[in-house]
Amino acid sequence: MDRVKFILDENEMPDKWYNILADLPTPLAPPLNPATEEPISPADLEPLFPKELIKQEVSTERYIDIPKEIQEIYKIWRPAPLYRAKRLEQALDTPARIYYKYEGVSPAGSHKPNTSIPQAYYNMKEGTERITTETGAGQWGSALSFACNYFDIECKVYMVRSSYYQKPYRKSLINLWGANVIPSPSTETEFGKKVLEEFPDTTGSLGIAIGEAVEDAATHDNTKYALGSVLNHVMLHQTIIGLEAQKQMEMAEDYPDIVIGCCGGGSNLAGVSFPYIKDKIEGKHDPRIIAVEPSACPTLNEGKFEYDYGDTGKMTPLLKMYTLGYDFIPPAIHAGGLRYHGCAPTVSELVAEKLMEATSYHQQEVFEAGVTFARTEGFAPAPESTHAIKCAIDEARKCKETGEEKTILFNLSGHGHFDMASYDKYFSGELTNE
Amino acid sequence: MDRVKFILDENEMPDKWYNILADLPTPLAPPLNPATEEPISPADLEPLFPKELIKQEVSTERYIDIPKEIQEIYKIWRPAPLYRAKRLEQALDTPARIYYKYEGVSPAGSHKPNTSIPQAYYNMKEGTERITTETGAGQWGSALSFACNYFDIECKVYMVRSSYYQKPYRKSLINLWGANVIPSPSTETEFGKKVLEEFPDTTGSLGIAIGEAVEDAATHDNTKYALGSVLNHVMLHQTIIGLEAQKQMEMAEDYPDIVIGCCGGGSNLAGVSFPYIKDKIEGKHDPRIIAVEPSACPTLNEGKFEYDYGDTGKMTPLLKMYTLGYDFIPPAIHAGGLRYHGCAPTVSELVAEKLMEATSYHQQEVFEAGVTFARTEGFAPAPESTHAIKCAIDEARKCKETGEEKTILFNLSGHGHFDMASYDKYFSGELTNE
Repeated sequence: MDRVKFILDENEMPDKWYNILADLPTPLAPPLNPATEEPISPADLEPLFPKELIKQEVSTERYIDIPKEIQEIYKIWRPAPLYRAKRLEQALDTPARIYYKYEGVSPAGSHKPNTSIPQAYYNMKEGTERITTETGAGQWGSALSFACNYFDIECKVYMVRSSYYQKPYRKSLINLWGANVIPSPSTETEFGKKVLEEFPDTTGSLGIAIGEAVEDAATHDNTKYALGSVLNHVMLHQTIIGLEAQKQMEMAEDYPDIVIGCCGGGSNLAGVSFPYIKDKIEGKHDPRIIAVEPSACPTLNEGKFEYDYGDTGKMTPLLKMYTLGYDFIPPAIHAGGLRYHGCAPTVSELVAEKLMEATSYHQQEVFEAGVTFARTEGFAPAPESTHAIKCAIDEARKCKETGEEKTILFNLSGHGHFDMASYDKYFSGELTNE
Repeated sequence: MDRVKFILDENEMPDKWYNILADLPTPLAPPLNPATEEPISPADLEPLFPKELIKQEVSTERYIDIPKEIQEIYKIWRPAPLYRAKRLEQALDTPARIYYKYEGVSPAGSHKPNTSIPQAYYNMKEGTERITTETGAGQWGSALSFACNYFDIECKVYMVRSSYYQKPYRKSLINLWGANVIPSPSTETEFGKKVLEEFPDTTGSLGIAIGEAVEDAATHDNTKYALGSVLNHVMLHQTIIGLEAQKQMEMAEDYPDIVIGCCGGGSNLAGVSFPYIKDKIEGKHDPRIIAVEPSACPTLNEGKFEYDYGDTGKMTPLLKMYTLGYDFIPPAIHAGGLRYHGCAPTVSELVAEKLMEATSYHQQEVFEAGVTFARTEGFAPAPESTHAIKCAIDEARKCKETGEEKTILFNLSGHGHFDMASYDKYFSGELTNE
């Protein structure tokens, strides 16, 4: 019987994160102060982030140690399993070998705790008593709530209005771990009030929610802000996904020709792919790396690579990244975690340097892929993750046409247990096709 | 750093189930024909079950091979992890060592696929084209839907009305795997219609839903019935939980003084505990085995040990078991999976012979225990599983008083991702305290 699951022992879990900044062919353009448009210094970020995270944000060390306390919490769900998708392969009748790394095993149900735990940890070490954040689909909000609970830090989550109502039980999960969650835009910040005055019926967006969370942190004592994607330190923490996957692919005596991740802010894609990008830059291997976006928010596919604000309120530093414009508000698709106007500067740079490709899909075809996956591999995927599944299925189908036995690896970033209302809409034919 | 997670390799997964019928001090009283009240023959069960399951139902072989095809599907989520609950221990400041086996890692989110997969498999082997069943909380219904999907068998689920509305997304999950689910009592069976005429506002019960599913199977071509608990073959399949746990407790170099499971029909409790009951009967060890019931449905605690029907419609064979009466309808507590008037004959016999104890808790205290667990160990538990958690916490607190360093093992039978509305009620103070 062939092995379908590749499991690392707790002791084989990587004890360092991989930092892509050590290996980028071109250094990243510096973030700019939103007021002066001059490069910002690490000290400029101190009102929002603890010093250790700022240090990681700008570090060019290739490997950064994972503190023992963080490793211990990671071990609640890590190392995460790598699966060979044999039943999916059979259903597609493809000669391709499809593997997926499954991050839905974390208590919060996605890859997000890989960074929420270190972020809360470093905040705790530096005495932070309260953290604010935004959340799209609620995966980041629940992950930060989970992490803050462990370190006894108060947590306030601004949840994009459309997701708040589409995914009612994500907020219950946030409550279960003790955080406070409200729909954004809200009347609790000046920026939120301003948006609501102008657009009372807005579905909200990650850009707006970030603006509110940043304003809240900047205007409250002993409060920091945490971001679930985009920034370099977030990508860094997520590389544990790919570092584990590399060990597991070795167990499988295989190496991916194609590595796939869905892409909103870019963190799960970075997590699974950056260690492979390293192999590529070093000339050891040449896998294709594919970022999969929703057609409704095609940042890498159709955006411009230029300096832009991370939020709609223009309070964050300007980052050089692919962007659809800081005031872009995407349709309220069910993959709430992919509704972001920008993309991580590291991922953007890799796309610009053609070390990474980008593609996009419409909403109905990704749900169709999600159902195919659930009915073959069993797990119910998050709407975000179905984008990666759809791309993996398409690549496997191409292999059927050409007869090529390619090895495909994708990241199944989370389960869809809190997205069942979206599946209901798909089955009832009510799903729009942005 | 102490190990918090004990993981078996895929190749260490047990390849046999353990059959308690080989070791019971007294043989079970035979099931009786509901019409004649005479012992039934295996052939009498053939309208409802495939022959191989009937064979397992009456077998006294100590170990029964798990077919390779079933092992391959089990390996999607098995071996399931065993955790040392170190953060819970710290929070309780107890000298006890608490371990839990986590069955929520299955695609359906509970232990139920351990038996739905073999049940669907043996049905497929014998040409069954359609299977009917009942479900309480929806865990069994989703597990059977998941299994029938793999073997291309049509599946119809009668879901207890109160759960159908309390847990809307359980039915979405059932749909995702392609089964048809309706609230019970329904107008699709004669028995359902009769109940609705008499009690139009009934919350339903497992007993009623079983009656409907059995009637449906008995009156449709090439249709069999599947039960998610109670029967011997179901207990048999679930023993993989305890067989794995025994290997993992060996890895931990520990042995439980107390083994705990929540108890409705008895299957998850049987699964974790029967291999330990064997140790007890053989005189190798003497762990306490504790069945935890809801106070609202205290079958083992307050029922009578006598012959009774498995369903409210009096269509099933009479089983000798602890029962609150076939027409008992418990309050609509949120642990829908524990709302059953009877209990497995094997579990009942073990309680009668004092090889197993029973206790019970009210609804609010088990939710409180569930929140404590989520805030220490991370995972959001199903309301059923919180009963086992509450008992483990109480036993650990006793250890704090006495200073005893007992080893406690409980089964975390499932996650609570589809039970968030129940947690919402707990937090808002709307939870009743049956």
